[in-house]
Amino acid sequence: MLRSDYDGQVCSVARTLELVGERWTLLIVRDAFLGRRRFEEFQRSLGVARNILAARLERLVEAGLLRRERYSEHPPRDEYRLTDRGLDLWPVIFELIQWGDRHEAPDGPPVLLRHRDCGGSIDSRRRCESCGAEVGARDVQALPGPGGGLVAAA
Amino acid sequence: MLRSDYDGQVCSVARTLELVGERWTLLIVRDAFLGRRRFEEFQRSLGVARNILAARLERLVEAGLLRRERYSEHPPRDEYRLTDRGLDLWPVIFELIQWGDRHEAPDGPPVLLRHRDCGGSIDSRRRCESCGAEVGARDVQALPGPGGGLVAAA
Repeated sequence: MLRSDYDGQVCSVARTLELVGERWTLLIVRDAFLGRRRFEEFQRSLGVARNILAARLERLVEAGLLRRERYSEHPPRDEYRLTDRGLDLWPVIFELIQWGDRHEAPDGPPVLLRHRDCGGSIDSRRRCESCGAEVGARDVQALPGPGGGLVAAA
Repeated sequence: MLRSDYDGQVCSVARTLELVGERWTLLIVRDAFLGRRRFEEFQRSLGVARNILAARLERLVEAGLLRRERYSEHPPRDEYRLTDRGLDLWPVIFELIQWGDRHEAPDGPPVLLRHRDCGGSIDSRRRCESCGAEVGARDVQALPGPGGGLVAAA
């Protein structure tokens, strides 16, 4: 676990990082935006140890960013879905993707984000370059890019 | 240190978090955007152990996000400034602030961001609400907000 001696810091960045400021956590959030919902999907995608994944999912539920939804009673199985509060992290994830695509993607973007309705590219202000619509988290489609790497959600 | 068993992941979020995906690191970047440059300024602001701060600054320099600039020869002292690559993280920091202000600031935003030129508020697309200009990292002024907490850079 990370230390949190800056708990007392009054700053929106510090408070946000208090909830999501750990890499696995943000990668789980990213996966949720890519449509992953089940423990096995996250596990396959991230290759993270199961106990760590379970702890991080639990923390995201406690923080109100994911909610649990039972999809099977026998055996009992839950899905994890982004809450509205979690969906609001979309601009953070989007900007992390933008930065990575610009600075750390020598073979081109690993994932291409498109406006689901019309297939248009998304500009740096999260607007569709084709139709001009504002593109929110639910309006995005992720396609494999030239840099490879998109593992489609099951 | 965080584990990095997902080094092999081809994803712009993963690659970006590889560089800045640790809370102290992003808080140092935030401080740099707030105008802090010197070791003592970061240390006072973050209250982080000096050896951890030194290691994180070193890592940010290696990653090309901060550069070292000597401001005193006797004794030898360096400042840390954002590179262009580091300045490009501004939208990530901005969106973290936005999310925290919306969801984790019951007393109001701890810090108010204003367009330096005209004092206007900044909208969710990083445009000035008064004059319409695009507001980049260098165009922002941070003022104490109702939620308290801004410690001005020395």
